[in-house]
Order: sequence, then structure tokens, then C-alpha cells
Amino acid sequence: MPMNIEAPQRLNEWTARQIANATRAGEISCEAVTRASLERIAGREAAVEAWQYLDAEGALARARELDRQSTARGPLFGVPFGVKDIIDTGDMPTEYGSPIFRGHRPGRDAACVALMRRAGGVLIGKTVTTEFANVHPGKTHNPFDPTRTPGGSSSGSAAAVGDTMVALALGSQTTASTIRPASFCGVVGYRPTWGDLRLSGVMEAAGSLDTLGLMARSIEDIALLRDVLLGTEPKPLQTEVPKPRIGFCRTALWDQAESSTQRLLEDAASRLIRAGAAVKDAVLPSSFTRIPDAHRAVSSFEFTRNFTAEITHRWNDISETLRNGRIKNGMSCTFERYREARDFLGACRHTLDQFFENYDVLLTPAAAGEAPVGLDSTGYTGFCTIWTSTHVPAITLPALRGPNGLPIGVQLIARRDRDRELFANATWIERALG
Amino acid sequence: MPMNIEAPQRLNEWTARQIANATRAGEISCEAVTRASLERIAGREAAVEAWQYLDAEGALARARELDRQSTARGPLFGVPFGVKDIIDTGDMPTEYGSPIFRGHRPGRDAACVALMRRAGGVLIGKTVTTEFANVHPGKTHNPFDPTRTPGGSSSGSAAAVGDTMVALALGSQTTASTIRPASFCGVVGYRPTWGDLRLSGVMEAAGSLDTLGLMARSIEDIALLRDVLLGTEPKPLQTEVPKPRIGFCRTALWDQAESSTQRLLEDAASRLIRAGAAVKDAVLPSSFTRIPDAHRAVSSFEFTRNFTAEITHRWNDISETLRNGRIKNGMSCTFERYREARDFLGACRHTLDQFFENYDVLLTPAAAGEAPVGLDSTGYTGFCTIWTSTHVPAITLPALRGPNGLPIGVQLIARRDRDRELFANATWIERALG
Repeated sequence: MPMNIEAPQRLNEWTARQIANATRAGEISCEAVTRASLERIAGREAAVEAWQYLDAEGALARARELDRQSTARGPLFGVPFGVKDIIDTGDMPTEYGSPIFRGHRPGRDAACVALMRRAGGVLIGKTVTTEFANVHPGKTHNPFDPTRTPGGSSSGSAAAVGDTMVALALGSQTTASTIRPASFCGVVGYRPTWGDLRLSGVMEAAGSLDTLGLMARSIEDIALLRDVLLGTEPKPLQTEVPKPRIGFCRTALWDQAESSTQRLLEDAASRLIRAGAAVKDAVLPSSFTRIPDAHRAVSSFEFTRNFTAEITHRWNDISETLRNGRIKNGMSCTFERYREARDFLGACRHTLDQFFENYDVLLTPAAAGEAPVGLDSTGYTGFCTIWTSTHVPAITLPALRGPNGLPIGVQLIARRDRDRELFANATWIERALG
Repeated sequence: MPMNIEAPQRLNEWTARQIANATRAGEISCEAVTRASLERIAGREAAVEAWQYLDAEGALARARELDRQSTARGPLFGVPFGVKDIIDTGDMPTEYGSPIFRGHRPGRDAACVALMRRAGGVLIGKTVTTEFANVHPGKTHNPFDPTRTPGGSSSGSAAAVGDTMVALALGSQTTASTIRPASFCGVVGYRPTWGDLRLSGVMEAAGSLDTLGLMARSIEDIALLRDVLLGTEPKPLQTEVPKPRIGFCRTALWDQAESSTQRLLEDAASRLIRAGAAVKDAVLPSSFTRIPDAHRAVSSFEFTRNFTAEITHRWNDISETLRNGRIKNGMSCTFERYREARDFLGACRHTLDQFFENYDVLLTPAAAGEAPVGLDSTGYTGFCTIWTSTHVPAITLPALRGPNGLPIGVQLIARRDRDRELFANATWIERALG
């Protein structure tokens, strides 16, 4: 395999870029790649439980079909992937993490699934989500320690990529549902600028906050997948950038981070300074402390309207966690309070645009620490709420190791619409952190 | 029927408010109302063809079930309604106006359907839409002249309400799909401030522009339905308002209006002045002439991504109109052009907010004139594109009659988030116009 001398030996560990380079050049078959993925799943699924539905036969058939196709080899040619089970698929069930939708078949691929398949991706199956992409957990374990949570709500997507079952997976984020599980499972997780990537066919939790979430094992793969999902020709990742102006943004929630996490992030900031970056403390406007309350109002109000049918007819099939949390909040939230909160978040977005005049990127925690022990909770969400609410792009890199040797993410934030610049600066930072 | 002495004799002609007042008070049964609706449809459907799918038995069963329910009589108790066939229903097919989705059953009620049903509404069936809510027409005729278009894309919803088959119907709007057919079919049509009403379970055409569209035969019914769709307790329509400051907004497209329409609107403006309103010419910023191009880029880019599966696998089942129009535009639109257009529309929204400091409401054409003869085209869309693109609320009132005695709408526009003020001022204007 001369084109991929840097690739790991086991195919399931390859990145999407490495796979596609080899399959497009005819150096390796799509079937071999899919088999490697399925073998990894066969060996590990009992411990990880990342999958809600697997279509091994369908995936192999699709891989063989691709192998017979000599032209039009797309940018994800033969790349195995999974999608969170709130994303509709025409040929597989979509259950939204709820017994209410057991066996539900929406009958049409979501836009994101169709775009990835058109690019040559091989859909392996549906990954476990918490109930309706909220907090009530699914069955998935952390791939690095089965006694710990994988995070949520995109639990299975993070675990499947972290465990090298697939190269790519889609999740979503309305609060912390991509960045946090990515941090816990040691993968690169990316939440795009709100509004860029189509959500047609993705269960709406709270439309004014929802985005897709992308999971991969390299920044390059995230950039590639974003271009596929934009429906545009992939562009190479820009890797030569000036030393970035980095804002170290502890946020008002810093005390919620474990002390080991605080030390790791402070050490990372020091290393970035030594690598030549300009790192300054970035203190958010004090009004931003009201964001979590506003986020709760907006997400709960919208969620509760979206789930009117289930709340009306299937109350007993909804978890107590959801009933006593988001639904209770949403039912008690007036339209006036909702609109006030929505307007406030809109104003924060403009404030943050200006804040970014001094920084290329913000460095901030992705989560409080390593994945917590226990599968009953998916962990603390606070370190994502500000960024989700302000519609800015966010990426987490698995650059740190906690006291138990488990991954901890470094979250990087850029200005709205600066997603490609975020990737370039993240690449610089990744190199600088070694 | 002492509570409804003002109501027309035939139940199918009653407004939703009249029906709910009588059913909630036990003066009339829900079954009788639904029967009246179904009888009207039985007598007229051959000529109008408003319905893609009818569930007469299901509607009667639901009405009888409501009649047995003595408590919790909601604000739409026993009110028959229809929804555009791009809106998902759990118990009926949803075909999106396309042969690709013949018999498609999405298996879950859209949020808007669930909210109306929870309020006591009786869903009669699915109304005809153009193909994927674009321009390729369905079978529906104008209820006032079967040789003419009902407009589109919410063709069946406008025709069904205009023909007094149902009191309420839902449509959607991405360009002109509610206001224009409402104008042609002589009903009150309303497009809300973008983002207020949930679209979960509604086919996405172009998410950054899509809204629901509401059809009724009174402003009061529109206000009632909006509250139901917000999931809030209905508030009475504010009907005593100061004489409004009205901007007469011909727009740069004035020459596209038929001369009879121009005269009718100018006469309406004169009558409003005589009734005491302050009416001034409102000239939009010249940059707004670029809105139609930007709207085309944004709507086509998003639409084309959303329909990736159909474009990839079912090309021959897509109409030539759609392939050579929106899809061609969307496939040739780069992400950079899309984002530039999206940013431009965002800037126009802020400009328009300021523009409204001088006006409570803008008076502007809803369409070029009466419904055109012929069923091949749904008519000129230009008079809605600016308002759709700027996310402002719009309502059209069937206040004018054209040279052939057919309805022509008066479109009224308010500032974003001023939907209730729009209803109040529309009520004043409706009275002033007689």
C-alpha cells in the first residue's frame, strides 16, 4: 500500500481520508474495509453497545456494489459510517431512543445520510442515542472503560468512532450532545455554525439550536465530511497558518471543571505559548452568565411543542427524567418568556462576533473531566451551552489524558461562519500540543 | 342557536370561532359540523379537487369521540381542518406532491397537526400541494372559476378554505406559497414571523426561509390558530387600536401588478386615509432589489441538498420544471455564493426592522391580480419574495374584487415579532375597507 504508508495496519483504524485514498486508487476493496469494520464491531459490540441497529449484510452488499463501480468514485468511497438513531434512514428503522418508536420506519433518508451515501459512504447502521436526544441514557458504554458513560446524547456515534468501529459518525447537538461524548470517547467532535448543514430528516429537538454533530478521528476527516454535507467539492484542509491569537476562555463555570482538568488546560495554554501562539485570558461579558437559563427556556419550549403527540398520547412511555425536566420546563414556559430568551441569545451572538475581533480561536473545556463512572448520567453539559446558544462553530480534540489515563477534550471555538479557519487553527494547535 | 345569531345558516360556512363557541357550549355536535364539511366536499370536490387524501370515516369517528368528551373541550373543539400534503400525519399518507412518495406513510404527526388535534380539531384529510411545495402544479382548480389556478404551492389548502369545505387549513411558505393562493382563493392567509411556529414533521424545502402558512376565513380565526400552534392559551384578538400608520409599499415590482390591481390598491389607500389612517408612500431601500436573486440562491441551494436522495436515485420522477429550475440553480450555486446571499438577507432583516420605525403596517400587493386562467402555472411570486426573505409576518385579506369579480388580496406586513399587532391593525383596515 504505497499510498498509505502512514496508515495503521488494521483497516478499521484508518481515517476516512486514508480509506478513500486507497479505495479510489483501487489499492484496496470497499468490501475489505467494510469487513474490517464489521469484524471490529463483532468483537467489541458486546462490551460497547454502540449500535441500535446494524445492517451488516446491507453494508457488505453496498460495498461490493461500489467495488463494481469503476467511475464516479466519491470522496467517501467505501468509507464505513454510522448515524445517530434520530436521523432518518429509508432502509433501516429510526427509533429516536424511545420505546414509542420501536421499529419505526420513516421511509426516507435524511439529507445528511443521502449526501454521505452519494459520496460513496457505506452506512453500517444506527448508533445509540439517549431518549429523544435528551438526557435519559441508552445502553452504550464508554469504549475505554465500560463502567463509565460515553456521554450523550450522541452516545453510540462517539463510542463507535472512539472504538475504531467506523471512521465517521453523525450525531447532533442542541446542548452538549456532540462535544461532550467526543471528549469522553477520545474522538474529534465538531459542531458547525448553526444553519450551514441541512437537518431535513433529522428529528427536531429544538430547531433554533439544533445542528448536526460530526465525529471522526482526525481534523482532516471532519473537514472532508463537512464539505460532503455541504454538498460541495471537498477542498484540502489549510494546514499552514500564522500562529493563532488564542483566547483562553475559562468561562464563569470554571469551578465546575475538575482540578485536574483545570491544570491540564492551563498546561496546554502554556505549551501553546511556548509554541509561539499569542494566548490571552478571554473573559466573556458578564451578561453571558444568563445564557444557560435562556438556553433552557428556548430548548424546552421548542422541544415540548415538537413532542405534542407523544406528550398527549404516550405520556407513560416517556422517561421520568424527561417528563420532570425538559417537558416540565417547556410546559411552564410562556411564549413571551420564550421570545425574550430567544432575543437575548440573538443579541449574545452579535456580542460574540465582536468579541472575536481579538481572537482567532478560543480555548475552553469540552467537559468537566474524564467520563464519569456510571451509566445513569451522561455528564455535565455546562461547557457547551454558551457555544451552542451562540451558534458558533466548535471542535474538540482528544489532546489530553486525565488522571485515569482517559481522554479529555480541548474545545476550540471560532467566530460564526469561520469553520474552515477553525479547522486550520485546530490543526496548528494539535501539532503544538504534540 | 342564540350564541351564534350572526353565523351563516350552513355549518360549513362557519368560522372556527363560531364552531368552537357552539360545540364547546353543547349547542351543536362535532359530528354535525364534520358532516357538513364532508357534505360540502362531496358536492364540490369533483370541480375543485382540493384533496390529495380524505379520511371521512376517521373524521366522523373522531367527531363522535369528541362529542362523548364532556370535559377538556379545547379551543378548536370539533373544528374540521385540512393540512397540506407536505405535513406528516401518523394515520394518513403524506406524498409531498410527488409520484416518488405515492402512498408514503411517515408514521408520526407533525408538531402542528398534533397541536391542532390536541386543541380538538378534526383532521379531514390532506390537501393538494405542488410537487415538493415548488411550482409544478397539482390537480386543484380555483373554487371560483375552475379554468383558473388556485395558486400554489398550498393550492388545496387555499381552495378548501375558500370553498367553505373546512374552516381552517395549514399550508407553508418558502416564497409565495400561502399569501398568493390565499389571494387567489379569497381567504385570509397568514405567514408568521419566521421561527415562531415549529416545523417538526413538515417537509423542509429551504429551512432558512420555510414557515407554516395559515388559512382561514377571518382574522380572528388566524389569531386563534396561531395561539394553538404556539401551544399557548388563546388570547382574544385586540380589536380596538389607534388609527394605524400605514406605509403604502408599491415595491420596485409595481409594474408587474396588473393596472386594475394598481388602481384597486390605490383606491384602498385612499379609503384608509378617509377612515383616518396616516398613509404614506413607503419606498424600500434600493438594495432590496437584490433580494429576489439572493432568495433564489438560498432557497435553491438548500432545496437541492435536502432532495439529494431523490435527485440521485429518482431523477426521472422529478418534473422538468423542477429539474430545470430550482435544482439546476441549486446545483450550480457554490457554498460561498449561498453564504453571501444568506448574509445579505440577514442584513436586510435588520434594515427592515429600522424601516418599521415609521410604520405600524405596510400595505402592498399580495399578487399581480386575479388568479390567472390556466392550471399550468400557479402565478407570479414576486410580491411575496421580499417579505418571505426578511422573515416578517404577512397577512392577506380578501378585501378587493378584480375585473372578473374574483378575489384579490390586500397584503399587510408588520415588523418581525409583531404578529399580534399585525392582526389588530389588519382588523382595523378590514373594517375601514368595508
